[in-house]
Amino acid sequence: MNKTLLLSAAMVALAGCGTATHAAGKAKWSYSGDAGPEHWGSLHASYTACSAGKNQSPINLTRFVDSALKPIGFSYKSGGREILNNGHTIQVNYAPGSKIRVDGKSFELKQFHFHAPSENTIEGHSYPLEGHFVHADAKGNLAVVAVMYKVESPLAELDKAWRHMPGRAGEKKTLPIPVHADALMPKRRGYYRFNGSLTTPPCTEGVRWLVLNTYKEISAAQVKAFTKVMHHPNNRPLQPLNARTVLE
Amino acid sequence: MNKTLLLSAAMVALAGCGTATHAAGKAKWSYSGDAGPEHWGSLHASYTACSAGKNQSPINLTRFVDSALKPIGFSYKSGGREILNNGHTIQVNYAPGSKIRVDGKSFELKQFHFHAPSENTIEGHSYPLEGHFVHADAKGNLAVVAVMYKVESPLAELDKAWRHMPGRAGEKKTLPIPVHADALMPKRRGYYRFNGSLTTPPCTEGVRWLVLNTYKEISAAQVKAFTKVMHHPNNRPLQPLNARTVLE
Repeated sequence: MNKTLLLSAAMVALAGCGTATHAAGKAKWSYSGDAGPEHWGSLHASYTACSAGKNQSPINLTRFVDSALKPIGFSYKSGGREILNNGHTIQVNYAPGSKIRVDGKSFELKQFHFHAPSENTIEGHSYPLEGHFVHADAKGNLAVVAVMYKVESPLAELDKAWRHMPGRAGEKKTLPIPVHADALMPKRRGYYRFNGSLTTPPCTEGVRWLVLNTYKEISAAQVKAFTKVMHHPNNRPLQPLNARTVLE
Repeated sequence: MNKTLLLSAAMVALAGCGTATHAAGKAKWSYSGDAGPEHWGSLHASYTACSAGKNQSPINLTRFVDSALKPIGFSYKSGGREILNNGHTIQVNYAPGSKIRVDGKSFELKQFHFHAPSENTIEGHSYPLEGHFVHADAKGNLAVVAVMYKVESPLAELDKAWRHMPGRAGEKKTLPIPVHADALMPKRRGYYRFNGSLTTPPCTEGVRWLVLNTYKEISAAQVKAFTKVMHHPNNRPLQPLNARTVLE
């Protein structure tokens, strides 16, 4: 297994610009129609995990097992410097040097992006927005910290990015004031853990999912600013849990 | 996903007779050489999980997470009625009606078979023999209870099967006295749990692995009777843990 290739594939997928992935010889995909989620697995030879995989994301978090999970070791700096619209999501690319520690390994924050409504659900409960903070270790293994957002009061830090949200797919802008990932997460960082995949083609498995169990507040206007630019929901349907458990 | 097909594929794979799988259009595989484990993934289109899968078995059990695992609910009857040599292992087929309860679901014991040396290792420790008790739920999802055997005193119950062990691949015999699976396991049934795959082609994932944390005693002669008939080790090499944890 070539971990560097996995990382490349994952990063391309996560960066996920329709044009970019097409240029890389991958197939265009979407959230509905002929290239929608139920067809992802057959759109390209490298997408087979989307249909054949038994450990896919997102999931409805359930089948909880009470566990002595170690706290995630966060050490983030302010580093969200670039915002892009890749046609599938709005993504903020992060400067090197921000990390989490999981399983005794260091995973660097590469980017974060959003899904509306939430992709994962918690015991059947869906949230209006979910943030995915994507980290990679030196071998290209991925760890995603997922944050659920609930509509209450505005999240000031998010506006540093949202003010520059590119309206067109393929558009990218530099952020004049860097966004701090820490300020986009709740203070309490208790979490659920499961073993899953990328939620977009190629749906690569072997991804550590760490879903925070405390939501963060945003405003209705902030959710709307995102959904207006996306034009459609960008959540993949729930995938079967199969043999997995969710640690809590 | 067609669960019935998954079960069929899994059962064929687990029954695993070289001739039978070949007749079903699958490729012959082995534990060494050109059709050995490092080549399984490319021997047949349906074997890709063997190389591409991120949640494969066996593993070295480590990265333990202390968990409130519920006891496995065993309700076994004496039902090992047929013994076969499929060229890859010695397998005892079980009569219907013996079950375990996991995740609120019932899984029926279909067969058990053996690997020498053990396929899974526990914190780097290998055992001379490992038994895999293979169960399936109504949808074809698999749950394997694994038992480690250590050379101390003879296991009388095993001789009910071992006395009739077929020497040639493809040979099958009826057991005059049924074997009771309960008597092949330790009394204490505390266990480790992880999410894995079949350890033989097609290496299908989504298998619940429940490895008992207490070993059972057998004799050196009982191990030797098995290895002599196998002619070679029948343990697949250890697979990467990737994003998985092991619950204990």
